[in-house]
Amino acid sequence: MQPSRSFASDNNAPIAPEILQAIVDANEGDAVGYGDDPWTLRARERFQTAFGPDTLVFFTFNGTGANVAALSSVLRPWEAVLCPQTAHLQTDECGAFERFSGSKVIPVATKRGKLHPLDLEPYLRAGHGVHFPQPRAISISQPTEFGEIYQLGEIAELCDYAHGHGLFVHVDGARIANAAAALGRTPREITVELGVDCLSFGGTKNGLMLGEAVCFFADETHALAAAFVQKQAMQLASKMRYISAQFDALLENDRWLRYASHANAMARRLHERIVDVSGVRINRSVDCNAIFAVVQRDAIERLQREFFFYVFDEGPPEVRCITHSATTENDVDRFAAAVRTACAAEVVP
Amino acid sequence: MQPSRSFASDNNAPIAPEILQAIVDANEGDAVGYGDDPWTLRARERFQTAFGPDTLVFFTFNGTGANVAALSSVLRPWEAVLCPQTAHLQTDECGAFERFSGSKVIPVATKRGKLHPLDLEPYLRAGHGVHFPQPRAISISQPTEFGEIYQLGEIAELCDYAHGHGLFVHVDGARIANAAAALGRTPREITVELGVDCLSFGGTKNGLMLGEAVCFFADETHALAAAFVQKQAMQLASKMRYISAQFDALLENDRWLRYASHANAMARRLHERIVDVSGVRINRSVDCNAIFAVVQRDAIERLQREFFFYVFDEGPPEVRCITHSATTENDVDRFAAAVRTACAAEVVP
Amino acid sequence: MQPSRSFASDNNAPIAPEILQAIVDANEGDAVGYGDDPWTLRARERFQTAFGPDTLVFFTFNGTGANVAALSSVLRPWEAVLCPQTAHLQTDECGAFERFSGSKVIPVATKRGKLHPLDLEPYLRAGHGVHFPQPRAISISQPTEFGEIYQLGEIAELCDYAHGHGLFVHVDGARIANAAAALGRTPREITVELGVDCLSFGGTKNGLMLGEAVCFFADETHALAAAFVQKQAMQLASKMRYISAQFDALLENDRWLRYASHANAMARRLHERIVDVSGVRINRSVDCNAIFAVVQRDAIERLQREFFFYVFDEGPPEVRCITHSATTENDVDRFAAAVRTACAAEVVP
Amino acid sequence: MQPSRSFASDNNAPIAPEILQAIVDANEGDAVGYGDDPWTLRARERFQTAFGPDTLVFFTFNGTGANVAALSSVLRPWEAVLCPQTAHLQTDECGAFERFSGSKVIPVATKRGKLHPLDLEPYLRAGHGVHFPQPRAISISQPTEFGEIYQLGEIAELCDYAHGHGLFVHVDGARIANAAAALGRTPREITVELGVDCLSFGGTKNGLMLGEAVCFFADETHALAAAFVQKQAMQLASKMRYISAQFDALLENDRWLRYASHANAMARRLHERIVDVSGVRINRSVDCNAIFAVVQRDAIERLQREFFFYVFDEGPPEVRCITHSATTENDVDRFAAAVRTACAAEVVP
Repeated sequence: MQPSRSFASDNNAPIAPEILQAIVDANEGDAVGYGDDPWTLRARERFQTAFGPDTLVFFTFNGTGANVAALSSVLRPWEAVLCPQTAHLQTDECGAFERFSGSKVIPVATKRGKLHPLDLEPYLRAGHGVHFPQPRAISISQPTEFGEIYQLGEIAELCDYAHGHGLFVHVDGARIANAAAALGRTPREITVELGVDCLSFGGTKNGLMLGEAVCFFADETHALAAAFVQKQAMQLASKMRYISAQFDALLENDRWLRYASHANAMARRLHERIVDVSGVRINRSVDCNAIFAVVQRDAIERLQREFFFYVFDEGPPEVRCITHSATTENDVDRFAAAVRTACAAEVVP
Repeated sequence: MQPSRSFASDNNAPIAPEILQAIVDANEGDAVGYGDDPWTLRARERFQTAFGPDTLVFFTFNGTGANVAALSSVLRPWEAVLCPQTAHLQTDECGAFERFSGSKVIPVATKRGKLHPLDLEPYLRAGHGVHFPQPRAISISQPTEFGEIYQLGEIAELCDYAHGHGLFVHVDGARIANAAAALGRTPREITVELGVDCLSFGGTKNGLMLGEAVCFFADETHALAAAFVQKQAMQLASKMRYISAQFDALLENDRWLRYASHANAMARRLHERIVDVSGVRINRSVDCNAIFAVVQRDAIERLQREFFFYVFDEGPPEVRCITHSATTENDVDRFAAAVRTACAAEVVP
Repeated sequence: MQPSRSFASDNNAPIAPEILQAIVDANEGDAVGYGDDPWTLRARERFQTAFGPDTLVFFTFNGTGANVAALSSVLRPWEAVLCPQTAHLQTDECGAFERFSGSKVIPVATKRGKLHPLDLEPYLRAGHGVHFPQPRAISISQPTEFGEIYQLGEIAELCDYAHGHGLFVHVDGARIANAAAALGRTPREITVELGVDCLSFGGTKNGLMLGEAVCFFADETHALAAAFVQKQAMQLASKMRYISAQFDALLENDRWLRYASHANAMARRLHERIVDVSGVRINRSVDCNAIFAVVQRDAIERLQREFFFYVFDEGPPEVRCITHSATTENDVDRFAAAVRTACAAEVVP
Repeated sequence: MQPSRSFASDNNAPIAPEILQAIVDANEGDAVGYGDDPWTLRARERFQTAFGPDTLVFFTFNGTGANVAALSSVLRPWEAVLCPQTAHLQTDECGAFERFSGSKVIPVATKRGKLHPLDLEPYLRAGHGVHFPQPRAISISQPTEFGEIYQLGEIAELCDYAHGHGLFVHVDGARIANAAAALGRTPREITVELGVDCLSFGGTKNGLMLGEAVCFFADETHALAAAFVQKQAMQLASKMRYISAQFDALLENDRWLRYASHANAMARRLHERIVDVSGVRINRSVDCNAIFAVVQRDAIERLQREFFFYVFDEGPPEVRCITHSATTENDVDRFAAAVRTACAAEVVP
């Protein structure tokens, strides 16, 4: 049987009720395909209200599609993007960007998955002229793949550094709402206002059925490229209204914030309830909706009989637990109790 | 104001009620991502029931994604696919296949968009050894882009010819249900039983919110390739259950057939009501849910003030009218009356 | 045994003596790699003298490399190049351009392999917005693949038409010297002065060991792209001096003209000697160094026992005979005599 | 003025006299293009004699072309190659492999540029199923980019480990002859006999004008792929005889060994003459024809006024000096003396 509540990923969550209702409501009559419909117009306007009137936005089906389309609109095939070697772009997109764009992803060693200007330096002077693809962009995940948050100053500093070296700044924001909620800022304040040029704004992990939004803030000529890249990258929905309607609802009445805040609160609650469990070692800051914990293998196995979650790194082993918009306090408490039991069992051999 | 009923495309249609209900019903609790869920299991079984137990099936977001993923699972980059020069693959996918796969699409001149073995011949002896990409597959659309149907014998003959020349047969079945309904056959009878190796089975144009299914029938080793291609082609949904649930519902109780039959009937009705209109010349067989008609430019303009549809070929000019699962008899009758009026107006200068 | 003289292709020719001497002469001491050497500097200057001081030139290893690098410097992956369906780019480069660039080649039906503005028209209005790759360039071969020549007015008209539609004009000039010689014009007069934007200037088929030159005339920002494309396309020679030295010698003292004129003269001589042979039907104009002739299959087989040449089209069948810088009058006369004998044998059954 | 002798790279060397003579000798009469000529047949036989009768060999224009063609014949676009992060493939080929193949290069952190099985381990268990390109090959440079040599046992161990994990082993042997000479072994003994599956056998850096040979030893079905990949990768020379003739001469009478041994001896001589110079710190083993030395910046600048060589790493700074088949004892002695002078000048401020 499928466990009733998963702590594996926010993509295990159901569609948030208001988002599902928006799909149902959009199902009235015919609508022109490919985005020339009122829902898409309205969703675009919401993004422009949120991020600024010059924002160019288009929607993709999934996160890999968003990252690939975003970067492929900017980079030419002899240009490269630098990202943490732990980035989703590097580790979880099956090389889709390289295959689609022909460009190179340069993985950069970082501390804890967070990129600092100093990490970039060796790669920028490694020129070699035409013998090496020209660094043209950096891509960071906010929050990081380990659920930690870049502080505003850190992003501003990265943007300054990047722009000073002719690099475009992309943020993989599959969970940008969780970061915004945790920082108590609007998405705009933690991206465009700090110098970010392009954002993959996540929907799927924040209550949508599916859908991501690629936002360009920079005053560049990406508009034309973006339209073709979206189509070529197989990310142009014919019945676009059903993706747009979801974003329209997500950005209405700060739902994006409400969902993400709830997910974050559930992770905090889980953290509080297991932080003192003997046999659980939490080495990373719990900033958003993810908890990483080193747990003994036997305890993991016992726990996985009841709950679904991933071992993120087989080495330690370190597990990852994710909460989401539909996680309840009761879910957390049951899971925390199960963690406690599974670890306790361990001590008695 | 958006016209209430569009005759532009079946992708202008709303989600069929039972399909939408399936999405709503699937929205219960958490589910493992990327297809490891009961809905996907059930949908896969329905395809195996429909097409045979060895059928390998995976879902994509849209039709371009389905065609690209299907062909990229089979072809290596120095192999080519032959298709009618009017094929969606050639004219409406923005070169996504070439960009993603690196392979060549060879457009073949045909009569009325239907491929015959004789059309292929010059391309097969044009060898040039390593100087020309090796033909490895043919791709045909059933029905054609002009709404006409390949008879069973025609497909069988094409498959025989193709297999005899080492070519794999792909069918772009974005509207395969309409063809099956028109022929009074099951999808299986008009594909796998005739020798078709791979099918893009359309969902979006037959009542789904979004979703296409790639089916491999041939006993080949595409399984591994397909899984990676689906991911690399940015077609792997994390919340897969919502696509699977739609296909599960579509294949249940012959809904695919019901929707398609209705669309076809509406096209027939429209045909009957406008075939005698002076100023309307219908040169193509109305086999499914599409009517192509040469109409005077003035009449088109008048008609487009009330109804949304495309001019398919600016030359004659020839318009395309498509019906779908939600088109009503009343819609058709109103449209037919408007056609009559628009054309009548013409005669009086 | 290898036949002493081939009529198969100008790439069957040996290196012209002065070119070989230039290689030998360049073999003195060390030289900086990748083109930062005096030979490359000198060769570049010769191209700038020949085509104008703003000409950007770089060298590639072979003709496919030249065409791919030229077009990939200009096109983005969602842009397309239109060319005759008989173009080398379409038929003899194994899809290298599609694979490397991801762009689409759109083959255009033409009369006798020569592109006219009228041929382009249907492809330019076939827009479909983002659904079809945007036409961005045309590529023509001068002379055509059938050895015929575009007159100056024809190229000027094509360039005007192309520029008027936002298209860049590329000329595949693998045999541009033969065309220039035939027209009694300089290469500049038949390219840049007529509006051509980019030229693949052939060396290999005009006496070089290997080497082609890509020349950009248009005042555009291709310089940066070109350097990276040359490297990525695996066309950057480390010991560049040996390619440059050949071009330096080829452009010195009008050797390019001398070699090509000789080759053309040999083709004319061959034409004169076989035009009246019963059993030989020459349907194409013999403008340069190629003769195409329809000959009976038995006669071809007899002739191929002694001489190496290709059957270009198995249908009629039509053979292609090419002369080159090393073809002698004696070679031609022996071959013509053999043609006469082979065809004569035929008549007596 | 160009310095008479460069220590920058073995690609700054002239063509070795016997190789140039082979080109001259091959320049007799016509020859069929694309490799169907006696020189190519003979060169292939020499490789089969050297590496075993089942060896599949084809020639490319340059080293990047060889590596790209070798790996692209084996990998599918969702497969990855692991190599040291200092590999030429990763740092000096401008992402040509990624662009051409669509596959991912995974740079592995190593000690001193030499790959050990332990370095690979974390990348092999990093599976993620379809979310990460499947490791399919490793690529190592013998000697390393730092001029150090893998001992036979090290390569054998790597091959065992790789094969045990389903990985194909490619060796970038741009300087394989220098390694063979240093180890006192035949090329076969240090590759195929240890388990290497595929070798880029360098010619350009060992006395050729240009040319590399890709050799497949494994009993796999690469033959067909290789022919198309060579053409698509723009590496198929039409006048192939001139590349083949060079390889024919290089493998005749152990010239490959003589040239490489000489280059190695010159590096040893240079090492002996500068190892005790105060201000020169040689941290890497001088195994072949390269010396890496940390030298003060001022001394480098003084020395570069007279001799051409590269600063390999601006950090320390560390310079790289390469000797080659044409480097003379006198060249070395003059250079060593100049090093001594440049460094001595330093001490006196």
